[in-house]
Amino acid sequence: MLGFDSDTYASVVGGAGARRADIERIADAATEAGYDNLFLIGSGGSYAAMWPYEHLITRSSTLAVRSVIAAELVTAGDPRLTERSLAVFSSLSGTTKETVAALEYCKAKGVTTIALTGYADSPIAAADHIVVNWADDETAGESVDIQLLLLTTALLHRRGEFDAYPRLADELADLTGVLTAVQEQADPQAAAFAKRHADTDYHFLVGAGNLWGFTYNYSMCILEEMQWLRTTRVHGAEFFHGSLELIEKDTSVLLFVGEDESRPLMERVQRFTDTYNDETTVIDTSAYPLDGISPEFRGLIAPIVVDAITIRFSKHLEAARGHALTTRRYYRTVEY
Amino acid sequence: MLGFDSDTYASVVGGAGARRADIERIADAATEAGYDNLFLIGSGGSYAAMWPYEHLITRSSTLAVRSVIAAELVTAGDPRLTERSLAVFSSLSGTTKETVAALEYCKAKGVTTIALTGYADSPIAAADHIVVNWADDETAGESVDIQLLLLTTALLHRRGEFDAYPRLADELADLTGVLTAVQEQADPQAAAFAKRHADTDYHFLVGAGNLWGFTYNYSMCILEEMQWLRTTRVHGAEFFHGSLELIEKDTSVLLFVGEDESRPLMERVQRFTDTYNDETTVIDTSAYPLDGISPEFRGLIAPIVVDAITIRFSKHLEAARGHALTTRRYYRTVEY
Repeated sequence: MLGFDSDTYASVVGGAGARRADIERIADAATEAGYDNLFLIGSGGSYAAMWPYEHLITRSSTLAVRSVIAAELVTAGDPRLTERSLAVFSSLSGTTKETVAALEYCKAKGVTTIALTGYADSPIAAADHIVVNWADDETAGESVDIQLLLLTTALLHRRGEFDAYPRLADELADLTGVLTAVQEQADPQAAAFAKRHADTDYHFLVGAGNLWGFTYNYSMCILEEMQWLRTTRVHGAEFFHGSLELIEKDTSVLLFVGEDESRPLMERVQRFTDTYNDETTVIDTSAYPLDGISPEFRGLIAPIVVDAITIRFSKHLEAARGHALTTRRYYRTVEY
Repeated sequence: MLGFDSDTYASVVGGAGARRADIERIADAATEAGYDNLFLIGSGGSYAAMWPYEHLITRSSTLAVRSVIAAELVTAGDPRLTERSLAVFSSLSGTTKETVAALEYCKAKGVTTIALTGYADSPIAAADHIVVNWADDETAGESVDIQLLLLTTALLHRRGEFDAYPRLADELADLTGVLTAVQEQADPQAAAFAKRHADTDYHFLVGAGNLWGFTYNYSMCILEEMQWLRTTRVHGAEFFHGSLELIEKDTSVLLFVGEDESRPLMERVQRFTDTYNDETTVIDTSAYPLDGISPEFRGLIAPIVVDAITIRFSKHLEAARGHALTTRRYYRTVEY
């Protein structure tokens, strides 16, 4: 497949699943020490990566949880953030300025801190606990999603709110085969999309449930940041309260459809675009067999499946548009 | 001023401030009965209108609070939603289907419900407590913001977390003069913007703190829904993690700058656009004198000030573009 490095992929995906023992040690330590609430902290894509797990906890646990932009937390504060708080940080490079500042802010308050990073010697690794799995920009999604799913369900398991944890962790042990098959199946759809939309300058993205974070991420961090394409992004439940008026027959619409409780919200959006739009691309995890994954976990891992599907879209867009995913005008290029 | 009806404005703005007695009765009743958490529930603009008050409570209280899309709450549920919960709903028409469904969902769980609406005989008025203030689409922002600020600060006051409440409520009693002066001051900037951008088909909106909800709202419910203009919207703390790459010299950028703790985040964005963009329009509440408003409350009422400023932008855009704010392709026009 175009731009696919199977060794890297196996190392990142298998490596993430193999962090299980580290993650369980951290979950045990946190549970033993006790905590009142959980903060999920990042910036940009690493912030949006937290949303599926805030969503999971919000709908299935009574644990107080908040995903928050690192810079906003430091600026505004939160009286709930105390020495009885648990805070999870994610930064692949480990150097994201605002996220490192938020780590220092939390440590000064006596918060128990956990950092996910690709580099054990990076600034974010000053956290109380670290989970290290190297990834590159393209595979960071899978790496972080697998680790956050393990970590949050391990915490819920120890609260008596997610009995299925051991079986889920077994199935997450090495998703390389499952996700490579996903990429292979997605490749023709992605190639056709990139060919058809090589000159399209605006895309309209809709997602919901545990795919809403990814929808935001793909809009902001891939299409806007890495392809300089104009986009709008809207939650499937909000689509009908404003943004829908922009849809014309030839508007490029991307729908991210998962298998959690939000599926009916997205099916409603899809019925609308079936009627009023001719350029809708549906990325639907239910179309993928996911051999070895139990039906009960399919909804939970949809963010990981969509990570894999959309790598194909990004790679084909890069080629069809002649715009490298790594080109930046500003980010880490100029001072601001 | 273009399309300004001073009688309507006085009726809506004065009417909202005059709801103080109703709101205090509700706050007293809720406080006396006791509650464990607060849900702020709406759809579209009425959902985004909740964000400043979730933000206020998050940064200044330990009360558990969640703003949530009505349809998402009903679909996903939340174990925290119990007979010990307080839920606030907002729907101007009182008929928004998903919001009414969420009210029924909450009532079935024994939640104490409070509805803000323009119509005492609308479906949403089936809530346990109602606050009624008529407004039209253009003045709904001021109406709801004033009432939500009164309600949330009244609740915090009774928790011992907002001692200044009585003075704030005094100052909110009738903002008609203050906000009319805001509109008059904003009118030339708005007229110039509309003239310059009559043919601009894409706007890039950035806001933070208690103006982030409005930024989302103006992007989705005004520019997209009412003007069919393409937009993107991004939080000031997220701007530097993706979206900034889209900025070119001639990109129309709208910055919403308030006076709360988030101001430095927006000043950083403004320094960036000062360097890399020639078409930035800054809507900054600090430029408005707001006679009669104490300095300590200026930050809190920034959403209301921005409501007033942007009515001018909407009215001038409507005229300059020859596109009525009331025209819809789909919303309440076709079935979906």
